[in-house]
Amino acid sequence: MEKVQKYIADRKNAMVEELNEWLRIPSISSLPDHKEDMYKAAEWAKAALIRSGAENVNVYKTEGHPVVYGEKLTDPDKPTVLVYGHYDVQPVDPLDLWDNPPFEPVVKKTDIHPEGAIFGRGSCDDKGQVFMHFKAFEAMVANNYLPVNFKFMIEGEEEIGSPHLGKFCEENKEMLKNDMILVSDTGIISNSIPSITSSLRGLSYVQVEVTGANRDLHSGTYGGAVANPINILCDLISKMMDENKHITIPGFYDKVMEAGKEEREMINKAPFDLEDYKSKLDIKEVFGETGFSVMERTGIRPTLDLNGIWGGFTGEGAKTVLPSKAFAKVSMRLVPNQDPKEIAELFEMYFRSIAPAYVKVDVKYLHGGLPVITPIDTPEYKAAEMAMEKTFGIKPVSTREGGSIPIIATFEQVLGTKSVLMGFGLDTDAIHSPNEHYGLFNLYRGMETIPYFFKYYSELKNSALNS
Amino acid sequence: MEKVQKYIADRKNAMVEELNEWLRIPSISSLPDHKEDMYKAAEWAKAALIRSGAENVNVYKTEGHPVVYGEKLTDPDKPTVLVYGHYDVQPVDPLDLWDNPPFEPVVKKTDIHPEGAIFGRGSCDDKGQVFMHFKAFEAMVANNYLPVNFKFMIEGEEEIGSPHLGKFCEENKEMLKNDMILVSDTGIISNSIPSITSSLRGLSYVQVEVTGANRDLHSGTYGGAVANPINILCDLISKMMDENKHITIPGFYDKVMEAGKEEREMINKAPFDLEDYKSKLDIKEVFGETGFSVMERTGIRPTLDLNGIWGGFTGEGAKTVLPSKAFAKVSMRLVPNQDPKEIAELFEMYFRSIAPAYVKVDVKYLHGGLPVITPIDTPEYKAAEMAMEKTFGIKPVSTREGGSIPIIATFEQVLGTKSVLMGFGLDTDAIHSPNEHYGLFNLYRGMETIPYFFKYYSELKNSALNS
Repeated sequence: MEKVQKYIADRKNAMVEELNEWLRIPSISSLPDHKEDMYKAAEWAKAALIRSGAENVNVYKTEGHPVVYGEKLTDPDKPTVLVYGHYDVQPVDPLDLWDNPPFEPVVKKTDIHPEGAIFGRGSCDDKGQVFMHFKAFEAMVANNYLPVNFKFMIEGEEEIGSPHLGKFCEENKEMLKNDMILVSDTGIISNSIPSITSSLRGLSYVQVEVTGANRDLHSGTYGGAVANPINILCDLISKMMDENKHITIPGFYDKVMEAGKEEREMINKAPFDLEDYKSKLDIKEVFGETGFSVMERTGIRPTLDLNGIWGGFTGEGAKTVLPSKAFAKVSMRLVPNQDPKEIAELFEMYFRSIAPAYVKVDVKYLHGGLPVITPIDTPEYKAAEMAMEKTFGIKPVSTREGGSIPIIATFEQVLGTKSVLMGFGLDTDAIHSPNEHYGLFNLYRGMETIPYFFKYYSELKNSALNS
Repeated sequence: MEKVQKYIADRKNAMVEELNEWLRIPSISSLPDHKEDMYKAAEWAKAALIRSGAENVNVYKTEGHPVVYGEKLTDPDKPTVLVYGHYDVQPVDPLDLWDNPPFEPVVKKTDIHPEGAIFGRGSCDDKGQVFMHFKAFEAMVANNYLPVNFKFMIEGEEEIGSPHLGKFCEENKEMLKNDMILVSDTGIISNSIPSITSSLRGLSYVQVEVTGANRDLHSGTYGGAVANPINILCDLISKMMDENKHITIPGFYDKVMEAGKEEREMINKAPFDLEDYKSKLDIKEVFGETGFSVMERTGIRPTLDLNGIWGGFTGEGAKTVLPSKAFAKVSMRLVPNQDPKEIAELFEMYFRSIAPAYVKVDVKYLHGGLPVITPIDTPEYKAAEMAMEKTFGIKPVSTREGGSIPIIATFEQVLGTKSVLMGFGLDTDAIHSPNEHYGLFNLYRGMETIPYFFKYYSELKNSALNS
């Protein structure tokens, strides 16, 4: 293990250069124009896995973007860990808010990252975090320190809801067979407070369309007599939440597994500085459901957020159009045991029921994912805890993360194994936003922690077998 | 007069070709990229005026787009008519809804226009209607039939609220001196029911901005705990109108000059087929303020319409962003005696007062115009009435138009004269929309009517002087 850590320590600068190569490929999965880039990014991952010492590495075509798989199996008696991550990234707009071009990564120092951070789309989510695994693995292979059998599955559709990975898992069950899945696509509370994500919210994502007249009209000639689809869309959206920020869709909360008193106490014990939170976001007040704390609102409560809205004239100046159509993208974060499709149906039913007769409405289900809870009394969770304690010098806390990784629930259903969400990002990394970055501290700390994880995991598994 | 009418009748086809040249110049005043096109369109108008027989024709620079002026003064004892119009056009988006490119005019037949209509941006609003004046004038000059002194002022900023024309009028009062202003920038009820616009609504146009956090956030990590500016914008817009579609801004209706019973009866006597109106727009129900008819809602009542809204991710697919900002363009149509700036201030005050503490809001006043009422007992109105009766064979009705021509009120203030709004467009011409068109019937009927207007106006003025 000492040699493994030294191997990593000796190569830190070259590693950033290597990662930047990958970050330069604009692998935006949601934009059809980037189809070719998806293959480039997948091929890059394949080459990187081969360089690191993986075997049987292939780029597998799917009906969508390809999946990269590789492995290093040394002993059937050792436990097998499947490392999952993704090489696709979020779109980059609004482009003008980026201080540097999103696909030309640069290292810059910040208040939180005095030792520097890599700025670029995907630096944290998730190329940077996947790359930690490649390099930790490389260090272990190079020093012949292989306490587990390794499998890697790096996909290209996580940011669009992994629409084809479930099928890929079904079709490759034997190849993907594992004892546990390790995922670094989440974060820690801060660089001095490590944490492990023990739950993820689910997601139900819909797009709505409101149509007034069959064509754009002059707002002078028709305004006041023909429904304006933007005004109506605003009315409908406004009716989705009451004054307590409780979502008004009938049946929305019916299946919510309410958190118990003990769990809520635990959540609220996690270190959280409200004033600091508000100041970093430059907001006067936080927002949210009455009766719940910020940590509860993002961890254990479902939400309804508009992710986009558009309609009418949006250029410079004034155009007096009464548009024919208005659109919005609406996502609902879900908690156990809400079901994405069922929630989308409840949304649609309610949206249609409150739409007035002078407009037509349409609702499209774009994608979704089930919420996930990972138990914290398993060897895999304990191994993550011990590894982080080893490198951070402090025992990590368990957190419920607000985001969603829809595929985690699918893994459990199809492959039958649990995942551990040991990520190293920070909330302030601006993933999905302009100026996404990933601290060098976090990148290196991740690489250092991962070999310990495998060490402790194999030890705990062995002692469980022997006890 | 017979020769004048024959001159026009003989040249109809060539005239359409000539107009199409002008329509091919994409003179969109609101888009900075089209600055050069504005000069091209102005130069075209200058050349056309010179061809028609005007003198002292010049393109006058302003701080914005230029003004074209020309004249034909034959006798100081004759009354002087200033013809006003504009060569600028509205933006063309959404481009994909145009059946033909907006700046490649084509003549096509429609149900309403069996003899054909010119499809292209500006064909009706207002190049086509200005062009009628050029050609009617040409026919009168060619036949030395000049009952009035002619002045033409064709501007390039009507669609953006004529921000520099007031100053131009101030600075050129002597040159522009007139007894009345004739404007063809409005419409008639139908091709069998001529009408003259006796009032125009005013306009107050603002842009609002709602800011949540200082950057785009991941909706999973922050959703439910940080205000979403799109949701909040929807809430705020939704609060602008009550369930009776009455605008809730305090003081909004304070200065509204309520129409009397008699006037409302007159308005509701104008031919209007509700089922036909709904069917043409493909709507199940009309919308609007309780207690008023469609004609009243667009003619004598103020409104609040969203002309545009945008924020967050608006591309293909799903992006789970909790955006930092959301924007909307809001226009309020005004009736006598509402003041655009005062209304914008009331809007801003209310908008700020209802904005919750977890967002910042900003309101920008973009432009506005006063509402206008033109008296119907003047020689100029009567001349228009007689001219239309002559060519249509039926006496035109007086209508209150919902649209705004903000500069009309300025003319009255600066030049001290009243305008007559004798336009020939139809509601169905899709001005400000994709597939704008102008019927050949309307184009020719306008050219035929205009010479009669000048004839009757000079006769009425003379008889008034002699009585």
